[in-house]
Amino acid sequence: MQNFEFIAPSDTAAELRRLRQSNPLIHCITNEVVQEITANVLLAAGASSAMVVAEEEAGDFAGVASALLINLGTPYGERLNSMYIAVHGAEDAGRPWVLDPVAAGGLPWRNDIIREFVQMSPTVIRGNASEILYLAGFGHGGKGVDSIDSSDSAVPAAVSLAKSSGSVVVVTGAKDYITDGKRILCAEGGDPIITKVVGTGCSLSALMAAFVAGAEDAVKACAACCAYVNRASETAAASSHGPGSFHNAYLDALYLLQPEDFEN
Amino acid sequence: MQNFEFIAPSDTAAELRRLRQSNPLIHCITNEVVQEITANVLLAAGASSAMVVAEEEAGDFAGVASALLINLGTPYGERLNSMYIAVHGAEDAGRPWVLDPVAAGGLPWRNDIIREFVQMSPTVIRGNASEILYLAGFGHGGKGVDSIDSSDSAVPAAVSLAKSSGSVVVVTGAKDYITDGKRILCAEGGDPIITKVVGTGCSLSALMAAFVAGAEDAVKACAACCAYVNRASETAAASSHGPGSFHNAYLDALYLLQPEDFEN
Amino acid sequence: MQNFEFIAPSDTAAELRRLRQSNPLIHCITNEVVQEITANVLLAAGASSAMVVAEEEAGDFAGVASALLINLGTPYGERLNSMYIAVHGAEDAGRPWVLDPVAAGGLPWRNDIIREFVQMSPTVIRGNASEILYLAGFGHGGKGVDSIDSSDSAVPAAVSLAKSSGSVVVVTGAKDYITDGKRILCAEGGDPIITKVVGTGCSLSALMAAFVAGAEDAVKACAACCAYVNRASETAAASSHGPGSFHNAYLDALYLLQPEDFEN
Repeated sequence: MQNFEFIAPSDTAAELRRLRQSNPLIHCITNEVVQEITANVLLAAGASSAMVVAEEEAGDFAGVASALLINLGTPYGERLNSMYIAVHGAEDAGRPWVLDPVAAGGLPWRNDIIREFVQMSPTVIRGNASEILYLAGFGHGGKGVDSIDSSDSAVPAAVSLAKSSGSVVVVTGAKDYITDGKRILCAEGGDPIITKVVGTGCSLSALMAAFVAGAEDAVKACAACCAYVNRASETAAASSHGPGSFHNAYLDALYLLQPEDFEN
Repeated sequence: MQNFEFIAPSDTAAELRRLRQSNPLIHCITNEVVQEITANVLLAAGASSAMVVAEEEAGDFAGVASALLINLGTPYGERLNSMYIAVHGAEDAGRPWVLDPVAAGGLPWRNDIIREFVQMSPTVIRGNASEILYLAGFGHGGKGVDSIDSSDSAVPAAVSLAKSSGSVVVVTGAKDYITDGKRILCAEGGDPIITKVVGTGCSLSALMAAFVAGAEDAVKACAACCAYVNRASETAAASSHGPGSFHNAYLDALYLLQPEDFEN
Repeated sequence: MQNFEFIAPSDTAAELRRLRQSNPLIHCITNEVVQEITANVLLAAGASSAMVVAEEEAGDFAGVASALLINLGTPYGERLNSMYIAVHGAEDAGRPWVLDPVAAGGLPWRNDIIREFVQMSPTVIRGNASEILYLAGFGHGGKGVDSIDSSDSAVPAAVSLAKSSGSVVVVTGAKDYITDGKRILCAEGGDPIITKVVGTGCSLSALMAAFVAGAEDAVKACAACCAYVNRASETAAASSHGPGSFHNAYLDALYLLQPEDFEN
């Protein structure tokens, strides 16, 4: 595997402190299933969200918000138009945007749409190993929304995709890798119970938009986001009994974790 | 500030007792993000809900239900038609309806839509200070869905809007004010952690529809709704650690609170 | 009432064991309100879900998934087309599908749609007593989404509907009855607090699709699903204080319950 560095705890602290101070407003056009947890994760972390979805206002709002999330979990015609309009609005206003290519590789119609968004050069592409392998042309994608490959195995694909797209590429899994095609940062930790709660991956992408908003170094901001979420996941797993109690403990942990907790 | 009275605990008890006995069915056409928490708040409080959204049946169902909620958090073309149809259905059947003008003042297209609904004379308009200030022509609206003004500062706007619209106007915040343009009632209490859970404001508007259904005095019914929710919020905050545990404790508190709890 | 047998605990154990080993992927086209809890129930139980809703890919995905759920809680034009396409996709691929006829009997437009889906011979129809009575021509349907009849009273209707539709019919309530028109199985238990959490019935239908996927005996698989959910409901009720804490405890219980727990 290519050389990588772990994100420094002091960098995680600094990026989280910046987020808490700036309280970014994230414009989310996401899938139908995860809107509530996405909003709650952003609120718990210290950001806020608005799901402005109409074609008539999605472009305007992308310029009002600090960053934009596009998640392709449940695309359909009219909503796709709003997504295109929002991306153009964000780009015109100089706002970063994050693409979550849900289930890339799984279905032909969706694959074509995802490729179109990749070609629009998102600031960040955040996916699981199967999705990133597929988008880099290294694999065939997962079964539904779950990855069937390890994040370690997708690092070369992430580097390749970062180079071809001009995006920061984040591949999450047991370890999270973040790359702009040159540097590779890694964030460890987390607990696998998080995969038993729907929307934890999708809301991570939304939170990444919040970390990237106003960031000087998008690679570092994304890695800090992963490290923060992994710590919250561990804290929550330690105090919960299953996915139901984990869900709430996770939101509590995101809320209670402070920058200083990463400095000790 | 204009003179106001606090809602009497015995009135809160009486209104909650009426709700529990009548078990109203609330027709909700609300935003995409908060449908689950809205239904759960209504169930916990002793009402029930149905989100009937198709143009073909929204008008009929508005007459079957006890009251209607229109929430403009995520408007888009087809869904707006269902909202108009439902409002006409409710009015034809003599049912009250509540308007939640989410993010009024924030975006031009949305502003025009919200103004149209205000001109249809909702039974109740429930908003935060920024939204009410904007609708009364006193301010410029908030940033996204969050208020940037205090509820105290919006009381004159609420009175003015109540007079011009013919609606009961409710402005919620640190204190909640309820007015028909003549009387002003106030409900105190609550805990600010509630603002870190998405949909607590939107579901309050839905619950207000449940309180207004069959009410003799809509101002009192709305104020009782606020007092009940504030007490549940305080109870939940006392037994929770962050927004995740608060969410569940809040639903538990709404369920467990009894009319008598306001009489002692 | 016709003769019925209780599902044997060893059968519940065997069916749950099969589910855990096969980890079925369920294609859900469900109502707007319950998508998150539906996905979380499936994940907690040991299945997974994808809500593929676009007309362009719903048919393809129905063949990729192990089973399909169609829930008619919030139908509207475009989404209905996706449902029809998905049903044809499932049938072409030999996949089972479950119909949840939400609020059948309540509104004329919806009634016609539900009848169309019933005529497409779902593998399973899962409803409450009022819905099943209506579909069998024995009653007039409920008020909104809640049943006003007991499940006991709907057993003859369930048998009749099973015969006319060719489907396994499941009527849930205080007791759950499952019939193919010849045999009748019954599952007892559960706790009524579950009716105070939105989507517990809808997610049961989704979970039933997971149990039916690959089942040799669909009647037994559906009854095992009910018995498993009832046990989880009891476990959760014992450790919760109201509908908020129940929600999470229910997901935890679904996750923690093992096949062996039904064998002792």
